[in-house]
Amino acid sequence: MPSALVAGATGFAGALAAHLLWRHPEFELQTVTARAEAGQRLDELYPRYRVPLELEQLDIDRHGDVDAAIVAYPHAASAPVVAALRARGVRVCDLSADFRLRELSTYERWYGPHPHPELLPEAVYGLPELHREAIRGAALVATPGCYPTASLLALAPLARAGLIADLVIDAKQGLSGAGRSATWQTHFSNSGENILPYNITHHRHTPEIEEQLDDLDPTHPDLRVQFTPHLVPLDQGELVNCYVTPTRPVARGELEEIYEGAYAGEPFVELAPQPAEVRDVRETNICRLHVALSEHTGKIVVLSAIDNLWKGTSSQAVQNLNLMFGLPETEGLL
Amino acid sequence: MPSALVAGATGFAGALAAHLLWRHPEFELQTVTARAEAGQRLDELYPRYRVPLELEQLDIDRHGDVDAAIVAYPHAASAPVVAALRARGVRVCDLSADFRLRELSTYERWYGPHPHPELLPEAVYGLPELHREAIRGAALVATPGCYPTASLLALAPLARAGLIADLVIDAKQGLSGAGRSATWQTHFSNSGENILPYNITHHRHTPEIEEQLDDLDPTHPDLRVQFTPHLVPLDQGELVNCYVTPTRPVARGELEEIYEGAYAGEPFVELAPQPAEVRDVRETNICRLHVALSEHTGKIVVLSAIDNLWKGTSSQAVQNLNLMFGLPETEGLL
Amino acid sequence: MPSALVAGATGFAGALAAHLLWRHPEFELQTVTARAEAGQRLDELYPRYRVPLELEQLDIDRHGDVDAAIVAYPHAASAPVVAALRARGVRVCDLSADFRLRELSTYERWYGPHPHPELLPEAVYGLPELHREAIRGAALVATPGCYPTASLLALAPLARAGLIADLVIDAKQGLSGAGRSATWQTHFSNSGENILPYNITHHRHTPEIEEQLDDLDPTHPDLRVQFTPHLVPLDQGELVNCYVTPTRPVARGELEEIYEGAYAGEPFVELAPQPAEVRDVRETNICRLHVALSEHTGKIVVLSAIDNLWKGTSSQAVQNLNLMFGLPETEGLL
Amino acid sequence: MPSALVAGATGFAGALAAHLLWRHPEFELQTVTARAEAGQRLDELYPRYRVPLELEQLDIDRHGDVDAAIVAYPHAASAPVVAALRARGVRVCDLSADFRLRELSTYERWYGPHPHPELLPEAVYGLPELHREAIRGAALVATPGCYPTASLLALAPLARAGLIADLVIDAKQGLSGAGRSATWQTHFSNSGENILPYNITHHRHTPEIEEQLDDLDPTHPDLRVQFTPHLVPLDQGELVNCYVTPTRPVARGELEEIYEGAYAGEPFVELAPQPAEVRDVRETNICRLHVALSEHTGKIVVLSAIDNLWKGTSSQAVQNLNLMFGLPETEGLL
Repeated sequence: MPSALVAGATGFAGALAAHLLWRHPEFELQTVTARAEAGQRLDELYPRYRVPLELEQLDIDRHGDVDAAIVAYPHAASAPVVAALRARGVRVCDLSADFRLRELSTYERWYGPHPHPELLPEAVYGLPELHREAIRGAALVATPGCYPTASLLALAPLARAGLIADLVIDAKQGLSGAGRSATWQTHFSNSGENILPYNITHHRHTPEIEEQLDDLDPTHPDLRVQFTPHLVPLDQGELVNCYVTPTRPVARGELEEIYEGAYAGEPFVELAPQPAEVRDVRETNICRLHVALSEHTGKIVVLSAIDNLWKGTSSQAVQNLNLMFGLPETEGLL
Repeated sequence: MPSALVAGATGFAGALAAHLLWRHPEFELQTVTARAEAGQRLDELYPRYRVPLELEQLDIDRHGDVDAAIVAYPHAASAPVVAALRARGVRVCDLSADFRLRELSTYERWYGPHPHPELLPEAVYGLPELHREAIRGAALVATPGCYPTASLLALAPLARAGLIADLVIDAKQGLSGAGRSATWQTHFSNSGENILPYNITHHRHTPEIEEQLDDLDPTHPDLRVQFTPHLVPLDQGELVNCYVTPTRPVARGELEEIYEGAYAGEPFVELAPQPAEVRDVRETNICRLHVALSEHTGKIVVLSAIDNLWKGTSSQAVQNLNLMFGLPETEGLL
Repeated sequence: MPSALVAGATGFAGALAAHLLWRHPEFELQTVTARAEAGQRLDELYPRYRVPLELEQLDIDRHGDVDAAIVAYPHAASAPVVAALRARGVRVCDLSADFRLRELSTYERWYGPHPHPELLPEAVYGLPELHREAIRGAALVATPGCYPTASLLALAPLARAGLIADLVIDAKQGLSGAGRSATWQTHFSNSGENILPYNITHHRHTPEIEEQLDDLDPTHPDLRVQFTPHLVPLDQGELVNCYVTPTRPVARGELEEIYEGAYAGEPFVELAPQPAEVRDVRETNICRLHVALSEHTGKIVVLSAIDNLWKGTSSQAVQNLNLMFGLPETEGLL
Repeated sequence: MPSALVAGATGFAGALAAHLLWRHPEFELQTVTARAEAGQRLDELYPRYRVPLELEQLDIDRHGDVDAAIVAYPHAASAPVVAALRARGVRVCDLSADFRLRELSTYERWYGPHPHPELLPEAVYGLPELHREAIRGAALVATPGCYPTASLLALAPLARAGLIADLVIDAKQGLSGAGRSATWQTHFSNSGENILPYNITHHRHTPEIEEQLDDLDPTHPDLRVQFTPHLVPLDQGELVNCYVTPTRPVARGELEEIYEGAYAGEPFVELAPQPAEVRDVRETNICRLHVALSEHTGKIVVLSAIDNLWKGTSSQAVQNLNLMFGLPETEGLL
C-alpha cells in the first residue's frame, strides 16, 4: 500500500486531503505537516475530519521516504517543497498555482519569479477528464484551481468543436473558497446576507483557463475570457456560468451530441436535465453540467456546479493520485 | 393629506408598501386589502411591519374614494382592479407587469391576453431616474420589476451613449424575490447552502429591459439581452452584473464622466468606488452602482445592487407616489 | 445479502435511508416506495443521493418478500404498514412514533387511537447505546425521535446514577427537522435570519424522553422534563442542552468517570473536551457530548450534538438494521 | 440642539450609534473617533450607515466641548475616556461594562482592577424600563449588555413579584454579537451551518443580571443564575429563553396580569401572543416578550427577543440620551 504525506494540512484544502487519504482504502496516510500548528492533533483543529495524527514540522529527511505527497502550500512557497520531494523520488500532487501554467512568462506576470522553473516541463495539468493519460505516467501533477476546473469541464467540448467566439464567465462560490484565514471578508456579519464580487476584471485563474482553451482549440487562438467571481453566503459549493457566443449558429441537438460524446463514461461528470445546483454535488468529486441554448440570443449557456473543496481541489487531487498509482480512478471517492 | 389604499397587502410587496405608507408623513394609509386573509390584522401576519389595520376584502364602492392606491396583485389579476380604481379617479401605482410594456403584442406573448389594453397609453414606466417628468403628471404608473430596475439603472448611461453592442446580464437575488408562497424552491433545506439558477434562457423581465434600452438608444435597435437570474441564500438583496461588449473602445475616464453626468444629484443612485454589495443597500431605496472596464477583454462590467423589495418594488412605488402627488421625492424614504 | 425495502422514500428521512442502504455493502436495496411521487425516479427528486430506482406504489404482495424494511410514514399511517410487513415476516425498523412508547395510554394522549397496539410488546426502542442486546434479537425496532436520541444519550449516565432532580432541555435544530413540506415556517424568508421557538411547553417528544429516563432511574420516578425546541437557520444539525439540577453535589472528576464509563468503546458517541458543535457531526452517525459543571450554580450542563437526519433518524435506523441482522454495527456508516 | 460625540465609532456598536445620532432630529453628531482607522471616513468602513464624517483621533481638548457622548470602548479602556469627558462636563452614555456593576468587588472579580471606581456612585444602570427616573437626572449612564437587557426585561416582573426560585437562561445570538474582529469563530465557514455554545458555565453578563434581580426582589437574595449563550448563524438578533421554577404555583391569568401591569404604556416592550421571534425586532429598539406556563412542569417560560445591536446596545443608548436630555423617549427611534 503506497504511503502518503500531506504537507500543509491545516488549510481547508490540506485538511480535506488528509481526511480523504486517511479513509482511503489504498493509501496509508503517514504524516501530516504544519508550520504554526505543529504539535497539535489534526482532529483538534478539524474535529469533523477525525484524523487522529499529530501535525509535524515538515522535515524532508524524515518525511521524504513516502511514495505519494499532496502539497497544500501557498504559491511560490510550494515549489521548493515540491522540488525537495521530487528529489527524493516522491510522486507529488501539488495544489498551488506553481505548476499549473505551461508558460513561465504567464506565471511570472501574475505571481512573480518562479522558484523552480526547471520542473515545469515534467508537470502535468491535473484535470483527469482532459489529461488522463498524461496523469497516469506523471510524477508531478498540478491540480487546477477550482474555477478552472468548473470552467474547463463546462467549456472543453465547445472549445474542441471550435465553437467559442466570445466568452463571459460569471462564477459564484461559497466562503470556504476564501480560505481559512479570518478576515473581514469571511466574517459572517459581512458575508452573510450579502454577495461579494471581487477581482471583477483581473482574476488569477483567467490565464489558466485561457491557456487550456488555447490548447483545446488551436483554430481560435488568444481568446480573451471575461471572468468575474463572487462569494455568496454558503460554505462549500461553486456554480460557474459560461455565456458563450458561438462562432456559428448551433442547434440544441448538436449541443447534446457534443456533450454526450465528450463525457460518456466519465465517472465524475454528470449532464443534468435541469439547471445544475451546488447542493447536488456537495462533498462529492462530481462536476454537474447543464447546457442550454437561448433561442432569443443564440448564446450557449453552460452551468457547471462543483464542490470547490472537493472536485475543485482536494478530491480531484486524490483522483489524480489514483491515476498516478494505477489504482481505480474512483477509489476512495464514492 | 392624501389618503391611500394598498390593494393586495399580504404578499411581500404589498405588505412592505403598507408599512412604508403607514409611517409616511404625507400619506394617510386608510385601507389594506386581502383575499384569503381578510379579517386578520396585518401586524399579525407581519409583526415586524407594525401596521395595526385589519385586512378587508377589496370593495371598490367603499374603498375607491382614496386619493392614491398601490396595487400588488399578480399580473392579469391586477389590470381589472387598476381599471376600477382609475374609473373612480384614483391615482394608481401598479406593481404588476400589466402596464410595464408599451407593446401590447409583447405583453401577450409573455403573459397572455391583456384584460385592459385601453389603459396602456396612459401608463408611465415608473423608473423615476429615467421618466421623472412623465411620472409627475401621471395617473397610472407601472412600477418596474426588480431586475429591470437594477439593470436599467446600470445600463441607461451606456445605452444613451450608444455604447452597447452585446450584453450579458447575470443576476442574483435573495429568496424574498421568489414571493411569499411556500414552495420547495423557497424551503430553507433546498435554498440554503445552494444557488438556484432559473429561467436561464427565457425570463419574463427580458422584454421589459429590451424595450426600455431600445427607447434609450434608437441607433442600436433590437438588442437581444442574454439574461440569467439566480436565487442565492439570503433574504433581501439583488446584485445584477451587466457584461457589455462596447460598440467602440472606451476609456476609463470617459466611463466615469458618463456615469457621473447621468447620476449627479440623483438622491437614490450611488456610484461606488468599490464593487457594490447588497448589504450596503438593504432596506433602502438606493441603487448602488460600480462601473469597471476590463483592460484584458475590453468589456465594461457594471454591478448594480438594490434591495429587491425596496428599490426593486415597494419603496420605488412610494418614490413614484411622491412624484405623482407633488411631494419631495425622498419623503418617507430616508 | 439481505434484501431491503424503504417504504415512504420521498420525505427527508426515507430518502436518506434509501441512500444509506443503496451504498451499504451488506444490504441490497430492492424497492423504494412513494404515494404521490410514484413513477418518478428517486434521483430526480434527490439528485444528491444518486439512488437510480423508480419509486413504486407500496404493494405488500409484491414488496413483502424482502428481508428488511425501513418504514418512513407519518405516525398512525405507519403502524398498518408495519403490521402488514411483520405478517409477511419482514424485520422492520420503523421511523414513526407508533412503536416508541411503551405505554399505550401515553401514545393515545399525544397521537390518538393506536392502529395496532398488539404489536407494542414486541417493539424494541431503537437506541443501540441503551438497548443493544434487545435490538439484536428484535424483529420490530422503533427508531427514536431526534430530540430523544440526543437527549437520552446526554442524560442516560446521569439517570442511571440517580443524579437528576430537575431538568430543563433547550433544543435547537436545523430546518430539515421540520420536514420536506413547504410551509411558511420553512420558507427561507421566514426561517433565515431568525430563530423559531415552537411547542415551547408541550412537545410530543417529551413523553418518550420521560419514559426512558424512568426506566433508567427507577428511584426518581415521574420526573417532569421541561423541553423547548427551536428551529435555527441551518439545514442539518441539532444541539440539545440539558440543564440538570443534581440530586446531590457532584464533583467534576466523578462526572468524567460516569461518562467515560458509560461510553468507553461506543463507536458512535464522542466525549468532547470543548463544547460540542453540530458541524462536527454533520452527515455522520455520531453523537458528540460535552459535559460541564457550573461551580456557580452547581448545575450540570450537558451539550449533545447530532445530525438530526443521520443519528437522529436514518443512519441510526441503519445502525439498528446492522444489529438486527448480525452485521458489524458500524457497517456502511463510517 | 445638543451636540454629540461617538468615541470609538468603528466597532459594530459605535458605528450604529453614530448612524442613529446622525439621522436623529434632535442631536447634532459632531465628531466620530477611532484609533487605528482615524483618517478614513465612516461611510467607507460602513457604507450602509451613510455617515459622511472623517474618523478622528480622540482629543479631549478638542472634542470635549460637546453636550453628549456615547463611548464605545472595550472595558477598562472605557473608564478613562468617560472620566475625562465627565471632567469636562459632558453627559456620557457608556457602552462598556465599566459602570454597569454596583459592586466594585464584583467588577474586579470579572474584569480586573477598575480604573475609576470613584465614578461608580454617580453611574445609573441604563435600562430605561427599570430605571427611567434615575436616568432622566443622570450624567453618566451605563448601557446594559445585550444579554442582561433581554433577560431583565423578561424577568423583572417575576422578580418584583418574588416568584423566581430557580432560573436557567439559554441565550442565542447572531454573529454580530461577537464583534467586528475577524476570528475563526466569526468565519462564515465555521459559524454558518453551526451552533456555537461558549462560556457555557461562566459568562461575564451573569453578575450583571444577578445584581439587578437582587435589587428587584430583596426577599430572595443571592439567586444564582445558570446562563448559557450561543452564537447561531444569523447576523443581528438575540433570543433569550428564561426557564423559571416559581416559588409557588402560579396561574396563567396571574402571569398575564403581572406582565400587562409591568409593561402597559412602555413604547419599546411588546407582549406577543405567539413565541417571540428575532425577525420581528430586527433593526428596532423593541423587546418582544412571550410568556408561557407549562402545565406539565409548572415552570414559567419567558422568551425575550431583541436586536442585540439595537435594543441590546446602541439604540438603547440613544433611548437613554433622549431621557438624559429631556427629549421624548422615542425620538429618532421609530
